[in-house]
Parts: sequence; C-alpha cells; structure tokens
Amino acid sequence: RYGYFGRNTPEMVRLLFCNVSGCLTEGRIFLSASGEEMVSINTRDTTGIRMLQKADVEVVLLTSSLDPVTKELAEKVSQRTGCKVMQVGEEPLDALKLEVGQRKLDWKDVAYMGNDTQDVNCLNLAGMSAVPRDAPNMAINAAKYTCRGVGGKGAVREFAEHILLQKKKAQSQMEQDRIDRKNF
Amino acid sequence: RYGYFGRNTPEMVRLLFCNVSGCLTEGRIFLSASGEEMVSINTRDTTGIRMLQKADVEVVLLTSSLDPVTKELAEKVSQRTGCKVMQVGEEPLDALKLEVGQRKLDWKDVAYMGNDTQDVNCLNLAGMSAVPRDAPNMAINAAKYTCRGVGGKGAVREFAEHILLQKKKAQSQMEQDRIDRKNF
Amino acid sequence: RYGYFGRNTPEMVRLLFCNVSGCLTEGRIFLSASGEEMVSINTRDTTGIRMLQKADVEVVLLTSSLDPVTKELAEKVSQRTGCKVMQVGEEPLDALKLEVGQRKLDWKDVAYMGNDTQDVNCLNLAGMSAVPRDAPNMAINAAKYTCRGVGGKGAVREFAEHILLQKKKAQSQMEQDRIDRKNF
Amino acid sequence: RYGYFGRNTPEMVRLLFCNVSGCLTEGRIFLSASGEEMVSINTRDTTGIRMLQKADVEVVLLTSSLDPVTKELAEKVSQRTGCKVMQVGEEPLDALKLEVGQRKLDWKDVAYMGNDTQDVNCLNLAGMSAVPRDAPNMAINAAKYTCRGVGGKGAVREFAEHILLQKKKAQSQMEQDRIDRKNF
Repeated sequence: RYGYFGRNTPEMVRLLFCNVSGCLTEGRIFLSASGEEMVSINTRDTTGIRMLQKADVEVVLLTSSLDPVTKELAEKVSQRTGCKVMQVGEEPLDALKLEVGQRKLDWKDVAYMGNDTQDVNCLNLAGMSAVPRDAPNMAINAAKYTCRGVGGKGAVREFAEHILLQKKKAQSQMEQDRIDRKNF
Repeated sequence: RYGYFGRNTPEMVRLLFCNVSGCLTEGRIFLSASGEEMVSINTRDTTGIRMLQKADVEVVLLTSSLDPVTKELAEKVSQRTGCKVMQVGEEPLDALKLEVGQRKLDWKDVAYMGNDTQDVNCLNLAGMSAVPRDAPNMAINAAKYTCRGVGGKGAVREFAEHILLQKKKAQSQMEQDRIDRKNF
Repeated sequence: RYGYFGRNTPEMVRLLFCNVSGCLTEGRIFLSASGEEMVSINTRDTTGIRMLQKADVEVVLLTSSLDPVTKELAEKVSQRTGCKVMQVGEEPLDALKLEVGQRKLDWKDVAYMGNDTQDVNCLNLAGMSAVPRDAPNMAINAAKYTCRGVGGKGAVREFAEHILLQKKKAQSQMEQDRIDRKNF
Repeated sequence: RYGYFGRNTPEMVRLLFCNVSGCLTEGRIFLSASGEEMVSINTRDTTGIRMLQKADVEVVLLTSSLDPVTKELAEKVSQRTGCKVMQVGEEPLDALKLEVGQRKLDWKDVAYMGNDTQDVNCLNLAGMSAVPRDAPNMAINAAKYTCRGVGGKGAVREFAEHILLQKKKAQSQMEQDRIDRKNF
C-alpha cells in the first residue's frame, strides 16, 4: 500500500537471523581442562545489534546443534545482546519458517547472516543476506552481501549498518513516491 | 603567560579520557558458561599510560553503560593501570564536562581517545583526539589523529607517544619564545 | 580390484592423523595463575572433521609429549570433535605405524596434517599431507599440500575439503574406468 | 683458544635472556572479573626454547616489575618452558650483569630478546639481540636482529633458529681453522 516500495520490499527488513558461531563470534571456542567453555563477542557488533533493535528490527541469534554452545553460554550471549537465542539443526530453514510465519512476515522482510554450508538455503531465501569475509566460498556465493569484516570483529555491525542504510533509502523513496503522487 | 603557546594550547595536554572498550581492549569480551567475563589489555598500552602519568598527564578510563564491563572487571583494569575508571552514558560529554571543570581545565587541554559513534562529540571537542585504525568511519572523521595500530594492540601507546611529542614541541617552542623575547 | 585407481590410491584416504597443536589450535596455550590451561578450536575446523567422518574417513588427533596438553584438556577436545586423541613422542612415526597396521591400511591410504619439525617424517610418508600456511619451512617442504589458512583458523577444514575433493575425483575416475572396460 | 673464532665470539651464545611480555607472549594479559589473570604462549616458541636448551644454551625468562605477571603465573610459565623466570626492574641491566658474571660469561656470549624501551640498553650490549617485528622503533633500532614474526607467535622460535645457525657457522669455521693450521 506504500506504492511498489511498500511493506514487502527487502529493504524494509523487520527481522534478522544471525548465526552466533563465526558471525557474532570468530567461530572459536575456548576449552579449558576444568570443562569451562568460552566465546568472545565484540562491542562493535553488539552496538550494531542495538542499532537494529532501536530501528525496530528484531534480532534472533542462532546456535547449531552440530556445534553446540552450551545452554549456559547461550544464555550469557542472550543477556549481553538482549536477543533471543534459538538452537537450530543442520538445516535451520524449517525452524525459521515457523518463526517467520508466527510474525506474519514474508522472507523478503527477513535478513540472514550465516557463515557456512548449513546456512546456504537461508542465505538464498532471505530478502537480505550476508556472510563475513572469511566465510567458505559456498556461503559467499549464496549471500547477497559479503562483509569486509571477519566474524567476531565487526561483520555483524557492518551488515547492521547496511540494513539500516537500505531502510533509509527505501523510506526516502517512499516519501518521494507519495510527493510524486500528490503532485500528479 | 607563556606567550601565545601558553597553558591553553592543545599541545599541552593535562588529561586524557580513553575508552576502555575498543581502545585499551580490542573491543572483545570473553564470556564463559559459568558467568566469568574477561577482557585483554596490552603491555605496550599500559606502558604508554605510565609514560603519560610520569609526564603529569592524568589518564581517566571510560566504560559505557551501553556495553557494561562489570564493576569487578573495571576495578581490575583500574588496579592494573593506576587509572580512575568512570562509567559514562550514551553521550559521555556531560559527565566529562564536569570532570574537566573540576580540574579547572579547558577542553583544549584535554585529549580524548574513542572508537565509536558515541565518542563523536568528544572527539570533536577535545584539543587532541584519536581513534584506532579499525574504528568506524564516523569516529575516524571526528578524530584529529588516526592511529596506525588497532585497539588493544598498541593504539593507546601510539597516541600517548603522539601527545608526549606534541608536548615536547610546545615546550621547546616556549623556550624559543622566551629566548626571542629576551633578545628582543 | 577397482582398476589401477583402486583401494590403495592416495586419493582414497581412510584415515587422517592431525596434530592438535598448531593445526586444530593456533599453537597457543593459555595459562592462568590458578593453574587452568585453555586452548581454542574453530567451528570451521570441527565442521571439516565432521565432513570427513561422514565420508568414512577416521580422524585421529595427536598431542605431543613435548608439549603436553593435559589429559583433561585432550578429553575435552576429543568429546568436542568425536575423535580419538593419541599422545605421541618426539617422533610420532612408530606409534602411528602400529595404528595404520591395526587398521590394515597402507600409508598411501593415510593423510597427515602437522606443523613442525617432529612431523617431517610423517608428512613425507603419508599419501596425502598438509601443513598450515604459518608452519616452519622445514615442515612446509615435507608436506604435499600447504594450506592457505593458518592453524586454528580453518587450515584443517581446508585440508578436509581437499581430501574429499580428491576422493570424489578418484571415484569418478573409477566409474569412468569401469565404463571404459565395459565398452571395450 | 679456538683461534679468533673462540669462546668469546658472539656467535657462540651460551645464555639467552628473553622478555616474557611481548616476546614469549603477545604482550596481552587477560583479566577476569574474579581476579584471574591469563597469558598465552605458543608451542612454536616453546619448541624453540627446547632447541636452544638441547644445544646447551641456557634460557632465562624476564618479567618486569612495571608490568608484573603474578608470581603464580610466572611459575606456570617456568614449569611449561623449563626456564628460570627472573623479575627485573625498569632497567634490567644491573640484575643481568650479576647473572652473566656468576656464569663467568662475557656479554658477547649472551643473547637478549626484548620488545620495549626498557630493553634498549641490554639490546645494545648483548652479543646477539632481537626484537619481534611489532616492537616500537626505539627497540628495533637497538636490536641487531628484527624478527619477521610478532611476539607470542613465533618470534622467539625465529631468534632461536638464528642463534643455532650462527653457532653452526662458527663451529664449522673453527673446524676449518683447525684444518688450515694443521695443513700449514
């Protein structure tokens, strides 16, 4: 209803799914002899997530059953970022379809950030999608946007700024369209 | 009273505000399942801080309420560096104005090191200001000096040496001025 | 029995020996004052190991008596990757010969990934062998394949993909040979 | 007594002093909220130290009172490397002169690896001296050898191989000299 740049355009992303491992983190897990597990996340990326949340883009973080981050660790990341953390299987698509449906969104309204083979289908399907620079070729080919940054060091922030820029562009286009119609 | 290169010149910095996250650290926070949080700081940077302190430049470290370093962790950093650590909000400027006023200093006597959007106003205002090389463009554009080093790996040291060099230059200029006036 | 590209060809690797230190990890060990030891491993590499295991390539991880990873830490790595972890001496060859013999394999069926002088003999002997890009020259010269990636950041994954690609090539060559013989 | 390439030549190093912070480690200290401190060291470097020890070069590690590694942590590093760890002050030279004297060595028999301003005098004095590539210019200018590697990632190993190579060269020169004298 906003003209052809309306609600369903990919530039008006409402929801970002983002892999924790390799996107928000470097993909490294620190293991200690006593059984402690650690990951590291970057201020720049959490700032990016906050920027999206302020612009009404929900951010949902994904961990993989193949490379489990312990439940306790996922909770820490969740607290730190204010995001829901979901555990998905080898093919995240089915579980995410449910989430997208529940929010009455279209995949064109969804952004996806991943970094490996299991993300390929989602990277293809999402309206906007990105991988960190250091992702395997298979994932880079499927993604619409390749970040200059690497995982765990600003890639999420970069994609967040890209999403917000597209949103701004779409909004000013919508404004322009309205003016054009009035003047017509 | 030292001629036109007197007390108020930016080269005679008395106080450095330095963001912990992304300047003194890499911006990474290590999270463990058991709830432990860790950051890493670099010897080279703490040596830089000591060099400033010896040259009577006070160093105050800033942590952000947006990206809180736990109070315990801030205290560790404070002990390690011998600096006061202040927690500031999304716009650090107001809190810092108070600090600058209390010390009866002018913003021209203040150096500021930051690395993200929330630092832009302070980077613009301070007599000397710097960002690590890997800072977002917005911060780089506001800063007067861009370090070759990245955060957590020598950027603070580099800015410290820059400040001390400027101080030296200003002092020798002052000497020169005094000699010139005597000889006049 | 599959023609001259049969079971014994190096391209049909059945077993990979992979050094933990410097290949699966960066070679770094984190030491804490309280006596805790930590290493970090990368999702991309553990995914590579899983890819090999799915393609019926057994992966055995090696730790060195010279640079001991504590037994507890080796167990954590073992759990995480689903691989057996063996401790070997300064010259791993003898212990590995036993392992190869027990599996009734030939060294041509074996892949080896190492990163330092103690790996030279095994790198020379194995049908396929690789080192991370940042290995010392001595090891690079002995290896048949030098990864573009560095240890702990995707080198194991890269070698895993290389092994799987060779396997695929050998299989399609075998198919071709069978067709050729039928048509003859 | 071995001709002019005798005992006192710098190529026949008997003792290496090596800074822990910035040479054996990256210069980073990990601080945790609970008060734990961690450093990381690299297998490649500890292998280099072992290579020196085998060739009868004693390795003594130095920590600085300016940037104290806790006693407990120094002990861990000591155990891991089999080296004595000494704590030195802002100018390590005096303490090290004692050590050199006790061993009845000359400074020409001593190698020194450092990475900052406090190391400048020792770098100048020692028969062989090195800094990691990422050292400040002041230290690079004082050192006789600049490693291609950075601290904590192989710089110590590189210097160790350099020392051993020089030793080999000096030994073969000595052999040559003896042969020449016999044939004379």
